[in-house]
Amino acid sequence: MSTTRWQVRAERPIAYDVVKAPALFAPGNDTLLQWGRRDGRRLVVVDANVWLLHGPRIQAWFDQQGLGARFAVLPSGEQHKTIAAWQDIVSELDSFPVHRRNDPLIAIGGGVLTDVAAFAASCWRRGIPHIKVPTTLMGYIDAALGIKNGVNFGEHKNRLGHFTPPLAVLLDRVFLATLPRRHLANGMCEIIKLAIACDQTLFELLEQNGAASLASAFREPAGEAILDRAITTMLQELEPDLHEDELARRTDYGHTFSYGLEMHHGERLLHGEAVLLDCLVSALVAQGRSLLAGQGVDRMFTLVARLGIALDASLLDAAIMWQSLQERIRHRNGLQRVPLPVALGECTFVNDITRAELEAALPLLQSRLAGMLPESALEH
Amino acid sequence: MSTTRWQVRAERPIAYDVVKAPALFAPGNDTLLQWGRRDGRRLVVVDANVWLLHGPRIQAWFDQQGLGARFAVLPSGEQHKTIAAWQDIVSELDSFPVHRRNDPLIAIGGGVLTDVAAFAASCWRRGIPHIKVPTTLMGYIDAALGIKNGVNFGEHKNRLGHFTPPLAVLLDRVFLATLPRRHLANGMCEIIKLAIACDQTLFELLEQNGAASLASAFREPAGEAILDRAITTMLQELEPDLHEDELARRTDYGHTFSYGLEMHHGERLLHGEAVLLDCLVSALVAQGRSLLAGQGVDRMFTLVARLGIALDASLLDAAIMWQSLQERIRHRNGLQRVPLPVALGECTFVNDITRAELEAALPLLQSRLAGMLPESALEH
Repeated sequence: MSTTRWQVRAERPIAYDVVKAPALFAPGNDTLLQWGRRDGRRLVVVDANVWLLHGPRIQAWFDQQGLGARFAVLPSGEQHKTIAAWQDIVSELDSFPVHRRNDPLIAIGGGVLTDVAAFAASCWRRGIPHIKVPTTLMGYIDAALGIKNGVNFGEHKNRLGHFTPPLAVLLDRVFLATLPRRHLANGMCEIIKLAIACDQTLFELLEQNGAASLASAFREPAGEAILDRAITTMLQELEPDLHEDELARRTDYGHTFSYGLEMHHGERLLHGEAVLLDCLVSALVAQGRSLLAGQGVDRMFTLVARLGIALDASLLDAAIMWQSLQERIRHRNGLQRVPLPVALGECTFVNDITRAELEAALPLLQSRLAGMLPESALEH
Repeated sequence: MSTTRWQVRAERPIAYDVVKAPALFAPGNDTLLQWGRRDGRRLVVVDANVWLLHGPRIQAWFDQQGLGARFAVLPSGEQHKTIAAWQDIVSELDSFPVHRRNDPLIAIGGGVLTDVAAFAASCWRRGIPHIKVPTTLMGYIDAALGIKNGVNFGEHKNRLGHFTPPLAVLLDRVFLATLPRRHLANGMCEIIKLAIACDQTLFELLEQNGAASLASAFREPAGEAILDRAITTMLQELEPDLHEDELARRTDYGHTFSYGLEMHHGERLLHGEAVLLDCLVSALVAQGRSLLAGQGVDRMFTLVARLGIALDASLLDAAIMWQSLQERIRHRNGLQRVPLPVALGECTFVNDITRAELEAALPLLQSRLAGMLPESALEH
């Protein structure tokens, strides 16, 4: 009897920790030495803005520890999230040989930097370990926490990439203190998204302490509590479905119409800003369907105003947003699977949003935003 | 109390089948319809030589089934295993949108083609499913069976890539019948490797029926039995360690010194030829250490002669081979971990091969090969 079929079956364990690592690069801090060989080499990929602000003390730490480090400084911004940047990192690995398993690459930067660097690490020798050190609020509470990495391709965000667990994610709030306010607000938009879609308590924390936390770059205990809660909720959402086997994902709230807007408007619209615009449009669509009460919608707009997040309603465009939904349908394998809020902290999924609904919601959003004077924006 | 650490833990199941699929593209054969949506689209990536020989019937099959197929024909050969080829496939996916989960990419070709196409599929939207249809003997018994994919980079073979399970691997011996003899022999070299390192019974099958099987392109039952045995043994080696967590791998026999030779000599030396040269050098090193008896070595050379595999001893080069070992040490995380045969079907791992040992083995191999007139080579 000859064989006709062989079955290959295995289980791949995934295990990594997200660790608070205050003052990670202070002299004598040995947290980072827990991973990799003590006498090894480290390719350290750093965002150019971070390098300007923190480069000397990062370099001094590696010098002091006697680790053979090479620093690859990459330009900042979404427009550099490219195959070319990925190839630059790969070329650094080529000219700075590291062991395959115990010389982890260290990525220090925002979501763009950690996504590109993790993608490069995940491809080199079919994967060398990497450690992510997020330096933006967006990275801290969202981009660096999961296992997704990648680069943009053509007009498409994150079209090429992988699911690759990091060795560790190290959180140091020191970096948040040097962020421009717009980038702090950018990360705050993702926290708002998470609160509306998944976590009413987080929403209430934002109502109570969000503005003060933003103003202090989350240095105070109330700010830390918001970050802790956001990270806990985010990881509860991610952990059971790290590879997105389930395509109806609550964390995708705000990630349907925003996708096209963000690629179209470039630096005029940061990722979080696009996401928040999408969240608000989606909430108005939900209200139009009587899925969500007007009181819930009002609390969302009140919170956005209280946090002083400036959103440019002139960037909304029905054609782009409708096209974006069509692309997301392919990404979600043939169905819209759009999360719509049904209460603060809860959402449902719909597959039948019409273009007319979208077009009805846009002027509502524009008039709401026009009537909204960001309170704390006046202070800055 | 604030949180100081979050643990992310998960298990990722891996499951795919390697399936005999005779006459896969014969009219009316519905094997390939088991995967993906019936009314879907398929990007079919095909090696240019395969397209010349089998393109019309492959295209006719898709036409007949009414599947929306696009055919991307890629040039043959190791020199096209590049980032550029990977980008070509990615661009095809961009201009021919498919659903994320149920429009599998189909890769039809040898190891180069299935490696590049699987790498492209594994990156698009962080992974769309792919099916591998190996058309070379090398692909059939080795390259297409596991979860490794990739492209070459700079002077390095397979330096960029991933571990990505296919949806399925479909084996159709029809393709082997149109292979040039040198490419059949190329695959046979990997079967010899596997036999020496892991499976004495397979070695004996080769001694008995290898030459006839090669001559008939494995059409006869004895040839099929060799392929079945090789696939079973290979998958037994791969399945418990799909991601190479263990770096001392018996299937790496013949893959230490060959690595540099192959990249250096290009088309003058096929992968299997380089592997077999490495196997023989390694066997002579093992003999020099009295790890392996002379009788075992003699049987190896006798088998190579009986199979009529032509090896060009003038391509051996101690400097290149020593350099190749240094690179493999990095790949094997700091140790040589070189498999050396201790009997037919068994090997051990050593970490202390010296350059002197390598240099002593090379003239022995050259004189053995010079004295060996490939028996069946005379017949062709």
